[in-house]
Amino acid sequence: MKRLFTPNLYVALTHYPVINKNGDTIASAVTNLDLHDISRLSRTYGVRAFYVITPLQDQKILVERIVSHWLKGVGAAYNPKRREALELIRISDSIRDVSAHISSSEGQAVKTVATCARTAGDCLSFRRLRAGLKSGAPHLLIFGTAWGLAQEVLDSADHVLEPVTGCTGYNHLSVRTAAAIILDRLTGKDG
Amino acid sequence: MKRLFTPNLYVALTHYPVINKNGDTIASAVTNLDLHDISRLSRTYGVRAFYVITPLQDQKILVERIVSHWLKGVGAAYNPKRREALELIRISDSIRDVSAHISSSEGQAVKTVATCARTAGDCLSFRRLRAGLKSGAPHLLIFGTAWGLAQEVLDSADHVLEPVTGCTGYNHLSVRTAAAIILDRLTGKDG
Repeated sequence: MKRLFTPNLYVALTHYPVINKNGDTIASAVTNLDLHDISRLSRTYGVRAFYVITPLQDQKILVERIVSHWLKGVGAAYNPKRREALELIRISDSIRDVSAHISSSEGQAVKTVATCARTAGDCLSFRRLRAGLKSGAPHLLIFGTAWGLAQEVLDSADHVLEPVTGCTGYNHLSVRTAAAIILDRLTGKDG
Repeated sequence: MKRLFTPNLYVALTHYPVINKNGDTIASAVTNLDLHDISRLSRTYGVRAFYVITPLQDQKILVERIVSHWLKGVGAAYNPKRREALELIRISDSIRDVSAHISSSEGQAVKTVATCARTAGDCLSFRRLRAGLKSGAPHLLIFGTAWGLAQEVLDSADHVLEPVTGCTGYNHLSVRTAAAIILDRLTGKDG
């Protein structure tokens, strides 16, 4: 059985730069259920903050409205457990801004770990990342939307995490379910 | 490292009988992303079939329309990988019908395993269920929507699986992300 611990871990969901089906770099639209599912996961696995990254002003306003409904609006009274999760959300322009913000508050450079469904050249294994997290060093786990993170994000991250595989070779999970599996493998109890 | 294997596993997503916030038994509405996320998970982890359970005629028609779009409609050409996942979906009236159908086709009684976020009295551990799956016996993993499966489902199942816990005590995941973690713990690779 794996030992339980609370990692010094941050999560980012990136809407730019990501790629579309044709491999073009785009800014994707925010999906409401991504915010709910990944903030609830973050709360479950002790993630310090959940950054929603988009440079688009209308998308930032959308995220603010959704979060505000559950933090201060009707939703806060209707479902306080949802508030506990969504209060982890921070809105940011770029991965660079998020990294700088975490590094500044931690007093040391955050290790950035990009996730990718494709097998990149030199991937970081779950086992090695788990060991890194146990050292207490701050890590930022970066997820992409649409068809995944743009190559420039993979190139500039400190590490690219090995892809999630099941037992079939099929490798097309939603970002919500991939984030669930990754957070559980890194920090969860496996009874 | 856990060994990879393809289990003799079926998944059901139940919309009746489930409970609402007040504990009343209700029939919930189908959520489009549940169908996509859980069928993609099922395809990833080698699940034999993904049963969507609702007795409501309008909800069955909705599921048929969604599935048809990706199996035969514009979606089939746009994203063939999505078709490979959604073709695992079967629509059924009740858990009883699903169990009978699987048991008949397998030539032996399927073991039913209900999932629940609350800790029930005598839960089946992930470890024991994983061992059961390795025996090759057919198992049906039952997920609830809304505020979870009605007590009668937990009472009538062969087993209730232990709840998914992270490292914080917060235990309010979406059914999509809970299904992801459970399937990965039962059958996935943990490198």
